[in-house]
Amino acid sequence: MNLRPIVSFGKIAGRMAQNFVVIIAGGKGERFWPQSRAHRPKHLLPIVGTTPLLAQTLSRVRPLAPVKNTFVITSAAQEKGVRACCPQLPPENIVVEPVGRDTAAAVALATLLVEARDPRGVFAVLPADHVIHDRKRYVADLKAAFAAAAADKVLVTLGIPPTEPSTGFGYIERGSKWKAFGRKPLYRVKRFVEKPSADVAGVYVRSGDYVWNAGMFVWSVPTVSSALAQHAPELVKALSPVRAALQGNQALPAVLKKVYPKLPKISVDYALLEKAEQVVMLPSSFDWDDVGAWPAVARHHPADKKGNVSKGRVVVEQGSNNILFSEGDHLVAAIGLENFIVVHTADATLIAPKAKAQEIKALLKQLEKAKDGARWL
Amino acid sequence: MNLRPIVSFGKIAGRMAQNFVVIIAGGKGERFWPQSRAHRPKHLLPIVGTTPLLAQTLSRVRPLAPVKNTFVITSAAQEKGVRACCPQLPPENIVVEPVGRDTAAAVALATLLVEARDPRGVFAVLPADHVIHDRKRYVADLKAAFAAAAADKVLVTLGIPPTEPSTGFGYIERGSKWKAFGRKPLYRVKRFVEKPSADVAGVYVRSGDYVWNAGMFVWSVPTVSSALAQHAPELVKALSPVRAALQGNQALPAVLKKVYPKLPKISVDYALLEKAEQVVMLPSSFDWDDVGAWPAVARHHPADKKGNVSKGRVVVEQGSNNILFSEGDHLVAAIGLENFIVVHTADATLIAPKAKAQEIKALLKQLEKAKDGARWL
Repeated sequence: MNLRPIVSFGKIAGRMAQNFVVIIAGGKGERFWPQSRAHRPKHLLPIVGTTPLLAQTLSRVRPLAPVKNTFVITSAAQEKGVRACCPQLPPENIVVEPVGRDTAAAVALATLLVEARDPRGVFAVLPADHVIHDRKRYVADLKAAFAAAAADKVLVTLGIPPTEPSTGFGYIERGSKWKAFGRKPLYRVKRFVEKPSADVAGVYVRSGDYVWNAGMFVWSVPTVSSALAQHAPELVKALSPVRAALQGNQALPAVLKKVYPKLPKISVDYALLEKAEQVVMLPSSFDWDDVGAWPAVARHHPADKKGNVSKGRVVVEQGSNNILFSEGDHLVAAIGLENFIVVHTADATLIAPKAKAQEIKALLKQLEKAKDGARWL
Repeated sequence: MNLRPIVSFGKIAGRMAQNFVVIIAGGKGERFWPQSRAHRPKHLLPIVGTTPLLAQTLSRVRPLAPVKNTFVITSAAQEKGVRACCPQLPPENIVVEPVGRDTAAAVALATLLVEARDPRGVFAVLPADHVIHDRKRYVADLKAAFAAAAADKVLVTLGIPPTEPSTGFGYIERGSKWKAFGRKPLYRVKRFVEKPSADVAGVYVRSGDYVWNAGMFVWSVPTVSSALAQHAPELVKALSPVRAALQGNQALPAVLKKVYPKLPKISVDYALLEKAEQVVMLPSSFDWDDVGAWPAVARHHPADKKGNVSKGRVVVEQGSNNILFSEGDHLVAAIGLENFIVVHTADATLIAPKAKAQEIKALLKQLEKAKDGARWL
C-alpha cells in the first residue's frame, strides 16, 4: 500500500476546516442479554460505569468537536433510547438508519452529513460502545489523528496494541513510520487482515507488527469522499438522493427510508480500507476494551476476595470468579458456582458458565422460535 | 422389645372408639428456599402436584377419619398459611404450638386433643409434607394400623421399605411376625436406630430386616397415654394445665403459651418409641417420598429428552438433568447447565448444583447475618 503524493489542504481561503465526530451506535443488543435487548443494546446500558456507554462516548469526545458538530447514527429500533440518552445533541444530529446496512453505508452516510455542514470538514467515526478510562490520552491520540487528516490526504485508522492473541478482532499490519503529529507517530499500513485463527493471532501478537482494528477512523470529507468514489462507487451512487436531500434541506428520514434498503450490506474495512492506498495508522496510547460479552465486564469492576463481581442484592455461598448482577430489589442467591454469569433483570434471568457466554446467540434464536418468546428479545 | 399381654379394648360399653387423625405441620421451610420461607414451609407449597402438600395430606386421610376428627398441629409463624390451606377444618382443630418443642411434645399434645373428644379414641399421627401417590394402599395400610391399635395395646409405627441406603432417615429393625389385620402383617420391633452412616445404611438395606422410620404412628389414647406416663412423665406433668383446659373447655392458646416454653425439646422416637415395649411395625405397601430437598422434586415431574424438569417460562441451551422453576411470567434462561437447580420466585432466585442443595442452610445463615437479609427468610 503506497501513499499518494501528499498535498496539504487543511486551510483553504483562510477558514479552518471544522472538526466533527460521528458516533456509530448500531449494536444488536444480543451479547449482553438479558440486560441488552433489540431496543436497548449495549451502548444504551451502563455495562461498565454508571451511565450508558454512548453517554460516556459523547462525554469523552467533547474536547474534539462541539456538540453541534457531533452526530449519532443509530437504528430505528434504538432511536427512542438513543434520543433519551443524548439530550444535549441537536435532534437533527441523531440520524436513523431505517434498516441496517453494515459500516460502509454508515460511513458513507456520515460523510454526507458532515459534508452538508462543511465540505472540507474533518471527522472521526467512532463506535459508541467501547470502554476507555484514560480520556486524556484518548483525546491526545485523536487530536493527532485529526491533525494528520487535516494536513494530508490520508485515511487515519487508530490501531489498538493487542494485549492478547484475540480471535475476535481484525488486525492491521504496521508498515514503516510515516509522520508524527503532536509527538504521536503514525505508520503506513501494509495490510488489513480479517479475524484470524488463534494460532495466527499468536504469531501476529508475538511479532509486534500488528495492532487491532477497532473501527475508529479520522479523515476529511474530500479524502474519504474521493476514496469512496473510487472503491465503492455503487454505494456513493445509491446514496446520491440523500446527498441531494441534505444539500437542499429536504426531510432526511423519508429519503433514507427509500434509499437504504437498496444499499449493499458491506463493511467499511472490506469496501474501503483494505483497498485504499492512502491509509495510515496511529497506535493508540489509551486503555481500550470493547467489552464484547459478559465475561469481559468483570475486568472493570472490583471483585471480592473470591473473585466474585456483583451488582445489586447478591449472596454467594461457596463460589468464586462469578459475575452476579441483579436489578431491582431481587435477591440472587448462588451456591457452589465457579466462573458463572448470572444476570437477573425484571423479566428475565440468564445463568451460564462464562465459557458458554457466546452461546447467548443460540439461546436467543431458540427464544425467537418459541411461542411468545420474541417479547424477551 | 417384648409385647405385654394383649387385652382387647376396642369396644367398651357398646360404643366404638372413634378414629382421629393428627397432622403434624411444623417444618421450618429451609430446604425449599426460595419457594419455602419461615411463614410458608414445604407443606404449604405445591412442591409436587398442584395443591399444597398439607392439602394433599388432608385429602388423603379423609377415608380414615371425619373432618371433625382431624387436627393439624402447627407453629405460630405458619398459623395463617395453615388456616388458609385448611378451610374445611373446624377452626379449633388447628392448634398452634407457640414455640417448637420437637415431636414428643406435639404427640403428647395430640393425645390430649383426642382424649378430650374421645378418651378411648384411636388416632394416627402423620407428617404433613410427604408425597404419596397411591392413596388406596395408603388408606388400606392405615386402616390395618387403626384396627391393630384399636384391638391391642400397641404403638403401631409404619415402616417404609427402603429403596436406597439413605442416611437421612432413622431405621427400624423388624422382629418376628406378630399379627395380621386386614391381611396386612405387622411385626414386632427389635430396635429403633438413629440416622446411620452410609456404610451402616448399606448393611441395613441389604439385610432386608430394616425399614425407614417415617414418623407415622397409630395408637389409642389409653395406650399412648400410659406409655407417655411411663417414659416421659415430666412431659405429661408439664402438660397437665393443657389437659385441664381441654377438659374444662378453657381457651387453649393462652394455656399453651404459658406451658409450652417449659416443655423438654425431645423427639418422640427418643422419648417414647425407643423405650416402649409394645411397639409393632406395619411395613407400608404404598409409594412414599419425603421429598427432602430440591433434587428429590425431579422424581415427581416429567422430564424432557435431556432430563430437564421445568415449571414456568424456561429456556435451556445445551443443558441436561436440571430442575428449572420460574414463578410468574419471568423467563429463566440457562446455558450449559448440568445437574443444576434454578428456582426463581418474585423476590429471590436460587442457583445451585444439585450436589450442593444441602448448603441452602449455610446460605440462609449468611442471609440472616446480612444487613436487611432476614426479609428473604
